Amino acid sequence: MAQRYALMIAPADAADTRDDYSGTFTPIDVTAPALSVGELSTQRGDGVFESIGVVDGHPNEVEAHVQRLAHSARLCDLPAPNLEQWRQAVTAAAAHAPLGEGVVKLILSRGVEHGPAPTAWATASSAPDYTAVRRDGVRVVTLDRGYDLGAGERAPWLLLGAKTLSYAVNMAALREARRRGADDAVFVTRDGYVLEAPTASLIIRCGDEFLTTAPSAGILHGTTQLAVFEHLESQGLATRYAKLSATDLATADAAWLVSSIRQAVAITAVDGAPLASDPALTAELNAFLLSPR
Amino acid sequence: MAQRYALMIAPADAADTRDDYSGTFTPIDVTAPALSVGELSTQRGDGVFESIGVVDGHPNEVEAHVQRLAHSARLCDLPAPNLEQWRQAVTAAAAHAPLGEGVVKLILSRGVEHGPAPTAWATASSAPDYTAVRRDGVRVVTLDRGYDLGAGERAPWLLLGAKTLSYAVNMAALREARRRGADDAVFVTRDGYVLEAPTASLIIRCGDEFLTTAPSAGILHGTTQLAVFEHLESQGLATRYAKLSATDLATADAAWLVSSIRQAVAITAVDGAPLASDPALTAELNAFLLSPR
Repeated sequence: MAQRYALMIAPADAADTRDDYSGTFTPIDVTAPALSVGELSTQRGDGVFESIGVVDGHPNEVEAHVQRLAHSARLCDLPAPNLEQWRQAVTAAAAHAPLGEGVVKLILSRGVEHGPAPTAWATASSAPDYTAVRRDGVRVVTLDRGYDLGAGERAPWLLLGAKTLSYAVNMAALREARRRGADDAVFVTRDGYVLEAPTASLIIRCGDEFLTTAPSAGILHGTTQLAVFEHLESQGLATRYAKLSATDLATADAAWLVSSIRQAVAITAVDGAPLASDPALTAELNAFLLSPR
Repeated sequence: MAQRYALMIAPADAADTRDDYSGTFTPIDVTAPALSVGELSTQRGDGVFESIGVVDGHPNEVEAHVQRLAHSARLCDLPAPNLEQWRQAVTAAAAHAPLGEGVVKLILSRGVEHGPAPTAWATASSAPDYTAVRRDGVRVVTLDRGYDLGAGERAPWLLLGAKTLSYAVNMAALREARRRGADDAVFVTRDGYVLEAPTASLIIRCGDEFLTTAPSAGILHGTTQLAVFEHLESQGLATRYAKLSATDLATADAAWLVSSIRQAVAITAVDGAPLASDPALTAELNAFLLSPR
């Protein structure tokens, strides 16, 4: 996922209504220094981000991503982003993504310590080759997230519904999963409910119904999960937000981790016990997710 | 706390035993770009740090800070820092701190995504003027940390004992405290125990005894708390690590938040209820903490 293009964004006020924000974008050399050591993104993980899948130059689900960026900014008391400016930044960056699969990443940082304004930038990269994992699936382990299911609503300062730059725990959970011989992790609450993966949402199938954990402040609302649910519903399939126990996952008829870049991957084992999978549906979901949307 | 000096550090292997690491330090312009947008510190808060108090050019508690940097790095699966290199970096940066009170900050980041090595740097800044708050104290609110007291030991991937760059929650808690009309926060576990403040340790006095929360993986082990305990013990006073309930704090005979830069500040109110304080002891603690150690 080597970055190939980046532009700095001079954040416009949310109330600004100009048509063309290209004058607020400054392309930079991705390998050159661009951020000062006073940046609060780097000192404290203090900012929010989005990763957008790009297929043959077309960024997918842009509106869901910029809306979530604004939601995350609100939870973090950051100045409201100008959504049209960010839409145009996505377009500008996506134009430099490679053919095939790419990534546009948006970052809104609180800025330089005691500085006047947030720092913002967008990057374009090629995506890793996920062909094999989309075909073969992932083995997951369940990892305690420490919180109970109500923590997010009870304590909004825990920022559980914001996609912040403070991702050290997510990265540590992925390392722990690999140490246990698995490929990925699913976080479980102290009271035994499954939440999400460190960088993906969880969808399970029980009988004829597709289920995901309700995003009631305790988890991110996954943009890819939303797209998959809309797709399933358009085919007349039943979807539902629910409280899902760890047992629901272990006994599911099929389960997937879904995210914007890796897309849909089947969970083939949970804590070492095999889980049924549905290769035809997985392939169909990925065909949908990789089409221009 | 405007930064006035910074140096990049080319991390040496922990097994390296040279005498002089000055050749691995590169002074940089603190206001100029120094970090690429691919930095994992900035993308994911993926790294560890320390803030060291400097008084008239003398950095305090250096050994405790570099040892904790190494401890945090170990919890985050980062390459072991070369302690002698970091000690020399502290000395080099502290030489550029202002007269009076300053700060040397150490940062060890996982580096550029897919890059070959961690990124590391140190900065020197002047400290804010904390004279008034050391005299007048702080009003705190207790804020739910979401976890129970055992979470850190049970789930080391939550990194509760590491001083990581993922500080968004700590910053959000401080904003929440100010929204509630207070100056600072004390985190409380789901099961009712007090932990620490977002950027400080908690010490309370109950009768003749000074108590702090046991750092059993659930909180950082405060370098300033350690120094204060040693100081109190040297005067024949009793200190103890304990499980402290929110009621223990609310009914304490006195309480302080202690940290490396602000030093010791009395807690004068908890959730709006006044708390007794001991101005003479607070002043004496600060005189000790601000002396060269």
